[in-house]
Amino acid sequence: MNGFNLKVFSGSCHEQLAEEIAEKLGIRLGERELLSFANGEKLVRVLENVRGEDCFVIQPTCNDANIMELLIFIDALKRASAQRITAVIPWYGYARQDRKASPREPITAKLIARLLETAGVDRVLALDLHSGQIQGFFEIPLDNLTATKFLEKEIEKKGLKDIVIVAPDAGAAKACTKISREINAELAIINKSRPKENTCEAVNIIGEVEGKNCVLFDDMIDTGGSLVAAACALKKAGALRVFACATHGLFSGNAREKLEKSELEEIIVTNSLPQKENGGKIKVLSIAKILSEAILRIHESRSVSELFHNNAQTPLNDFTKKSATKAND
Amino acid sequence: MNGFNLKVFSGSCHEQLAEEIAEKLGIRLGERELLSFANGEKLVRVLENVRGEDCFVIQPTCNDANIMELLIFIDALKRASAQRITAVIPWYGYARQDRKASPREPITAKLIARLLETAGVDRVLALDLHSGQIQGFFEIPLDNLTATKFLEKEIEKKGLKDIVIVAPDAGAAKACTKISREINAELAIINKSRPKENTCEAVNIIGEVEGKNCVLFDDMIDTGGSLVAAACALKKAGALRVFACATHGLFSGNAREKLEKSELEEIIVTNSLPQKENGGKIKVLSIAKILSEAILRIHESRSVSELFHNNAQTPLNDFTKKSATKAND
Amino acid sequence: MNGFNLKVFSGSCHEQLAEEIAEKLGIRLGERELLSFANGEKLVRVLENVRGEDCFVIQPTCNDANIMELLIFIDALKRASAQRITAVIPWYGYARQDRKASPREPITAKLIARLLETAGVDRVLALDLHSGQIQGFFEIPLDNLTATKFLEKEIEKKGLKDIVIVAPDAGAAKACTKISREINAELAIINKSRPKENTCEAVNIIGEVEGKNCVLFDDMIDTGGSLVAAACALKKAGALRVFACATHGLFSGNAREKLEKSELEEIIVTNSLPQKENGGKIKVLSIAKILSEAILRIHESRSVSELFHNNAQTPLNDFTKKSATKAND
Amino acid sequence: MNGFNLKVFSGSCHEQLAEEIAEKLGIRLGERELLSFANGEKLVRVLENVRGEDCFVIQPTCNDANIMELLIFIDALKRASAQRITAVIPWYGYARQDRKASPREPITAKLIARLLETAGVDRVLALDLHSGQIQGFFEIPLDNLTATKFLEKEIEKKGLKDIVIVAPDAGAAKACTKISREINAELAIINKSRPKENTCEAVNIIGEVEGKNCVLFDDMIDTGGSLVAAACALKKAGALRVFACATHGLFSGNAREKLEKSELEEIIVTNSLPQKENGGKIKVLSIAKILSEAILRIHESRSVSELFHNNAQTPLNDFTKKSATKAND
Amino acid sequence: MNGFNLKVFSGSCHEQLAEEIAEKLGIRLGERELLSFANGEKLVRVLENVRGEDCFVIQPTCNDANIMELLIFIDALKRASAQRITAVIPWYGYARQDRKASPREPITAKLIARLLETAGVDRVLALDLHSGQIQGFFEIPLDNLTATKFLEKEIEKKGLKDIVIVAPDAGAAKACTKISREINAELAIINKSRPKENTCEAVNIIGEVEGKNCVLFDDMIDTGGSLVAAACALKKAGALRVFACATHGLFSGNAREKLEKSELEEIIVTNSLPQKENGGKIKVLSIAKILSEAILRIHESRSVSELFHNNAQTPLNDFTKKSATKAND
Amino acid sequence: MNGFNLKVFSGSCHEQLAEEIAEKLGIRLGERELLSFANGEKLVRVLENVRGEDCFVIQPTCNDANIMELLIFIDALKRASAQRITAVIPWYGYARQDRKASPREPITAKLIARLLETAGVDRVLALDLHSGQIQGFFEIPLDNLTATKFLEKEIEKKGLKDIVIVAPDAGAAKACTKISREINAELAIINKSRPKENTCEAVNIIGEVEGKNCVLFDDMIDTGGSLVAAACALKKAGALRVFACATHGLFSGNAREKLEKSELEEIIVTNSLPQKENGGKIKVLSIAKILSEAILRIHESRSVSELFHNNAQTPLNDFTKKSATKAND
Repeated sequence: MNGFNLKVFSGSCHEQLAEEIAEKLGIRLGERELLSFANGEKLVRVLENVRGEDCFVIQPTCNDANIMELLIFIDALKRASAQRITAVIPWYGYARQDRKASPREPITAKLIARLLETAGVDRVLALDLHSGQIQGFFEIPLDNLTATKFLEKEIEKKGLKDIVIVAPDAGAAKACTKISREINAELAIINKSRPKENTCEAVNIIGEVEGKNCVLFDDMIDTGGSLVAAACALKKAGALRVFACATHGLFSGNAREKLEKSELEEIIVTNSLPQKENGGKIKVLSIAKILSEAILRIHESRSVSELFHNNAQTPLNDFTKKSATKAND
Repeated sequence: MNGFNLKVFSGSCHEQLAEEIAEKLGIRLGERELLSFANGEKLVRVLENVRGEDCFVIQPTCNDANIMELLIFIDALKRASAQRITAVIPWYGYARQDRKASPREPITAKLIARLLETAGVDRVLALDLHSGQIQGFFEIPLDNLTATKFLEKEIEKKGLKDIVIVAPDAGAAKACTKISREINAELAIINKSRPKENTCEAVNIIGEVEGKNCVLFDDMIDTGGSLVAAACALKKAGALRVFACATHGLFSGNAREKLEKSELEEIIVTNSLPQKENGGKIKVLSIAKILSEAILRIHESRSVSELFHNNAQTPLNDFTKKSATKAND
Repeated sequence: MNGFNLKVFSGSCHEQLAEEIAEKLGIRLGERELLSFANGEKLVRVLENVRGEDCFVIQPTCNDANIMELLIFIDALKRASAQRITAVIPWYGYARQDRKASPREPITAKLIARLLETAGVDRVLALDLHSGQIQGFFEIPLDNLTATKFLEKEIEKKGLKDIVIVAPDAGAAKACTKISREINAELAIINKSRPKENTCEAVNIIGEVEGKNCVLFDDMIDTGGSLVAAACALKKAGALRVFACATHGLFSGNAREKLEKSELEEIIVTNSLPQKENGGKIKVLSIAKILSEAILRIHESRSVSELFHNNAQTPLNDFTKKSATKAND
Repeated sequence: MNGFNLKVFSGSCHEQLAEEIAEKLGIRLGERELLSFANGEKLVRVLENVRGEDCFVIQPTCNDANIMELLIFIDALKRASAQRITAVIPWYGYARQDRKASPREPITAKLIARLLETAGVDRVLALDLHSGQIQGFFEIPLDNLTATKFLEKEIEKKGLKDIVIVAPDAGAAKACTKISREINAELAIINKSRPKENTCEAVNIIGEVEGKNCVLFDDMIDTGGSLVAAACALKKAGALRVFACATHGLFSGNAREKLEKSELEEIIVTNSLPQKENGGKIKVLSIAKILSEAILRIHESRSVSELFHNNAQTPLNDFTKKSATKAND
Repeated sequence: MNGFNLKVFSGSCHEQLAEEIAEKLGIRLGERELLSFANGEKLVRVLENVRGEDCFVIQPTCNDANIMELLIFIDALKRASAQRITAVIPWYGYARQDRKASPREPITAKLIARLLETAGVDRVLALDLHSGQIQGFFEIPLDNLTATKFLEKEIEKKGLKDIVIVAPDAGAAKACTKISREINAELAIINKSRPKENTCEAVNIIGEVEGKNCVLFDDMIDTGGSLVAAACALKKAGALRVFACATHGLFSGNAREKLEKSELEEIIVTNSLPQKENGGKIKVLSIAKILSEAILRIHESRSVSELFHNNAQTPLNDFTKKSATKAND
Repeated sequence: MNGFNLKVFSGSCHEQLAEEIAEKLGIRLGERELLSFANGEKLVRVLENVRGEDCFVIQPTCNDANIMELLIFIDALKRASAQRITAVIPWYGYARQDRKASPREPITAKLIARLLETAGVDRVLALDLHSGQIQGFFEIPLDNLTATKFLEKEIEKKGLKDIVIVAPDAGAAKACTKISREINAELAIINKSRPKENTCEAVNIIGEVEGKNCVLFDDMIDTGGSLVAAACALKKAGALRVFACATHGLFSGNAREKLEKSELEEIIVTNSLPQKENGGKIKVLSIAKILSEAILRIHESRSVSELFHNNAQTPLNDFTKKSATKAND
């Protein structure tokens, strides 16, 4: 008799990540066919029985077509009688549209939460959501993993002294405060009075950075403009070396080019969305291990928060052994 | 004091149609800003007060980005306290995915209906939906207009004799039966046994077409392959002249090229979705008049079905005068 | 400890079918009491514990009282803490009201889908729904079985030559096309220009039937009027023998009498709804085997589509042995 | 411009009441077609424009077909864009199934409330619901009118002395207590220890009835068995005369015959559901006036409770004059 | 691997009851932290893993803060991925607001049912709900236990002769009728014509009580005023001894003092809500045994109604042995 | 004929504010009765007709009883057929619980949003919500007013030089950045490394404050501990004078006493929740004007954002004149 086995499917956005995850879980990816018709319509066909199964769909939502494909995938799984459907969305598109910044704007991050629920998803597995409140946009359980610890470790590995964590803007101040405490670093904040790209004249730095090693920390890097300007200003203000860390590397437009030319020594991101061969200054950490561990724990009804709270090293070890041991909670 | 005025907005898919509609309604299009960020995320900003207003958004859903934009637009209007939001979707993308053709498929046409309702739309105004059942996918009222009468009129204008309405496949047989009765024509049906593109060998014709003027009738033309093969077969079977009519001209891939080279004499479609300068064999009829008349009737709580049943010419006349007269129901 | 056992209950519409199914499943029907009070109100009492159980209710919806009883039955099971409730509806009443045929009509097939969901049903098991889109009227998973293969087999058993599958109207053309391909037959379509009962004058036949064995194929036979007229016209056009096949034999009014007197040689239907002792020309095939196999597969989370796709003979064999073997999906 | 006019439609259950109501409102009933197909399926066609209108459907729910017809009617009106739909249900079938009397029973009165809401009704207008809690089964506003005052007036008109209001069972005790206070009468309660029809041996009377005029009061009379037994027992206990009052006269089975032969002198009911020519002991009061007044007040957003609280005579006068005066609330 | 274990949590209202229940179940209470901030806001933190577990929260809803805490607790469990959440609400606050007693009143008992469902509860376990219809306010399964049998047993233990069950008002008549039959007692009903506290002048007694042992029976005792007046009147009317029984002892205001001074000999209630050291006339029975047995049966998918119907003694015995035996249903 | 008049009701939390608002609107408050029973249950009775009216309920949610009362009030209005119900919640309790700060926590700010929607509210009018994302917790339209401009004006009135806006913690940095730009001030941020009450040793200041006039800005002041410590540290660091501004003055526990004794010169808050006679250092600004203006604009379907964007002085003038003028949008 079948039922409630773990099945992992990949959308079209990030098959490489899905394959890494499946490999770590010791299973093969679920078979599916992703068709694209001449007029651009997509069709998702699930090619194996999923009745009563515990299905995960890996799909960062890098663009509108990814979102629609994910919704359609969920509909197909639901109608095929999957027991539980978890959307694994390491990069949650539209996350910055989480409030009305001016009148008569949408709150698209909320809209997408509801679209996912309408399609029939049962849970979401996310990574470093732009704001914690997005979790509250969902009625269904959502596990919000974090890659911050991995980024912190990368910094710690460098053995730098006199580190200052620099928030690239006031919105990042809270997260940077937390990080600065975790690695016993100082804190500084960038306050760009008159935003102007390609120059760092209008960039004010609140806090001391002279003679310090600066690490700009944010949840995402989009066009990279602010980071480049911040690095320029930090150097002007006497910073020794300047690094940048972010979970999500969008690198929109000519971001990569700008960053390579900048005062930044290294930019560390994860593969929460597809990354090109990194080379150059951009270093990419894989989140496949932590996602696969979380998927296994969700499947086995074991604590996910334990991954981060009891022993931060857990996901760095081989969890296939661990899964045989009894978790405390 | 404000409230319940008619406001028409345009999404980005088909601004030309929206402008035609606004012009016919004697109003200007509602002001909005459609932003597209570097990473592809869209932002819809409504730039005028819509509290208590009766808002229509014109947006054929030609691709996934159009669908998402429409959903976001609806969210913005809802949160801006619009009294009623009507999505005007002359071309309803994914309409053919209205049932499970094979196991573990989605029913995307239904999914999109629910996404629209979730976003907060109050009504839908559609045109020649691929199947009437799609209306049943919605809980909210939906008016399904038809352009069939206009297409029939175009054929009648030609003054052809011995017309045979030809259903390009069995799925179109029912609609073609109705059309053949309305214009007193014969009926034939194409039964393609072994589908093979670029040839008409495997095309069987059920019914008599020799020496007749054939009009292939369907709701949409996508890649055009079936039509081209049908026209070839009809000619081989002795048809005099061959025409094609469809409400929706998708013309995917190199459809235009194929159609120009085909045995078809003329292909008549509407501007339910954006059409290039037609030239050549493709003739485009505008649906702006009928949509604007329907919008006005919905706004004024007058019968929409009356447009088609009492007097088919109504939408062809200037409705701005008519709107002052009292409708019977 | 109890839980998630298979329980099959019967509504009052078709107890004979329910008993056949239970017998094939090797279980007894669940105990329930169906009371009807003096003023016509019904009461459904479930007489055995169903907490945590997997409950199926067999009820074709032959009339409004059947529908209400099914809804009430579902409410009783839901409040009694059944784990999962599947409505087995081999004949889905009001299926033809699946779109608005004229203005201000209801879409009752959709309404009933929502009533079932409101009552608390978790799944539906149906048979040859009038249109595939009805599946899209449901949010919950629905398995739509088909009896077409059984009907085709019955025809093949006759060893006829020169078979033409005849669609009794254009609406049936698509399904008949598929059937004609599956049994390598020709196709013809009836096009009744001026419908008039008890005569076949106005019946046009599109396609060749002279000297052929004709099989009229439809999903249901209601009053039988169209079939009788079609058979008469086919004979006039030179058909050798005429048969009719349909999954659902409603035989409303004096349909049986009309059919017995008609040119039809045999009419083959299933017991999707209660059938009288057949005798005469009407032959009834039992769907108990396929329904019981589908119920077992749903209960055991095995593929239902496999019943039809991998090996059409599966349901014809004894599935009790098979259920011990491991399904591929 | 049209919109928000009052439209009253009748279902098939009680056209006579609907016509009385329309007459009192000075309007004609809305045009609709109620079809019944050969296989028993119903079709409701609304034959006039209802966009933006305030629609009321008169339909006591005397049987399952009435309930389905009402649901279908609501679906038709909703899809035809009615602005507001009010179901006028003077007799609410299944009202007694408002709680689980034994394990694994449904709560059908609640189920029907939800079915109505699912179909799309906006309000309900009811009359003397079996229990006040049924109002709580609805999310939508429900006005629960009462005919008790009219029944009390009928009793008062008789000029009887020494009246005892007799509750036919303990469940009616609370309502009878209220009535006995309103007309300054005594109270007694029937306590039938061993229910046995056609005899009054097991009927205990709690309270004094000797030499008194007894009025049995209940919300409904179904088979009449309890009332007949109660009347027999009251007479045995020395009651002078015995009457019975109830809003709803179901008179199921041979109730009329039993009541005519009983010790009851008169049975007063209303036409909340269709009543035969009364003749004999059964007297029927019309509720058309109070329903039409309530419909008008709902349409005009005036207080409905005022009908009963400020001045009980209001509905007995001609409200067409009143509707021009300004209500206080 | 974890999952679907039984976990019982306690809200802040009645920890003593929760501990008794846990002890009987042989488990420890689930760990949680109930914080109350300086401004009165509460925070519920679940301190152990609940993924996939079967969670019960014990919380009588004695006041608004209890209700909010219960809703917040449910939200926390839901977001922590509990498999099933059952609210155990032995005293359901606002139960008397189950219908509109006058115009423009809320139906708060229904509102709370919906709030619970909105928060995400899957089931409710209640005890002697004020009216059976409250069960119908819920869509989710609700088990309504009763303590009536225990109260009856307490009376029977006294070995009294000539018992009369007295309904303290007409609303309690129905329940008292049932009780009087179960213990073969007579029935009387209190009919307080002009309610006035601290006097029994206006209290009429319907039925015979002279020389009898009277037991006033109700679902709850609130301020005790009616009971005290009833006891006074019963004594005046010649009753031998007067007792009172109720499931829920609210004892609001100075109820305890009034009752101690009254003609009542003993008042028997349960600990459905927290009770002070009883002493004096008030005797408290524990419901921990029956609640724990019901929790176990729900967890194990065994019949709960069986507790009351097959063998009333079941919950009085040690169920830990019984749980190993196979229940019939 | 009645309908869609403006009606303003007050809950029990802040009647003074409601009266101020009604006075400014030139209307009397709606009549209602707020009962509290002996056992603590509340009853809300609406004492005037609200059918078809536009109802606003003023209720800051200062505690759980306020929340329940608001929900009950909404239920009463909904069942009394109010056309539209707007909850005016100037202080939104539980706003800080807008994300999961640690595992297995609730998101109570979201829960309350859903409870309000479940009760039946149509809109919310709020003031300086703790986070903008709370707006996204609602599906219904929410207008989030701000008192920041008024607070800024109060500071500007003082004519101070060398102002530094000080964020009391990193979470407030973003809002303070915006404020510092609006009044052309510098920015500093408090970074409390080891939180310890009643001392300012562990308080680090990022940014320059020596010789400056410091204004601590936050959305709310709760226990005041952080502010007192911040003021102490600012003084130590050489600040000239120190002020504090916040929209919401909760002043929990002995906050007032602590603040009076602190280095703070003045603390400016609004009456978003009830404030004691201010005296001492605490200055209270009234928000009645801006709320009443917003209520009027909502009622009249005029832009609310215009209040803040076009001309910040608008709400400071007498809007009763303005309401006669035509708004641009």
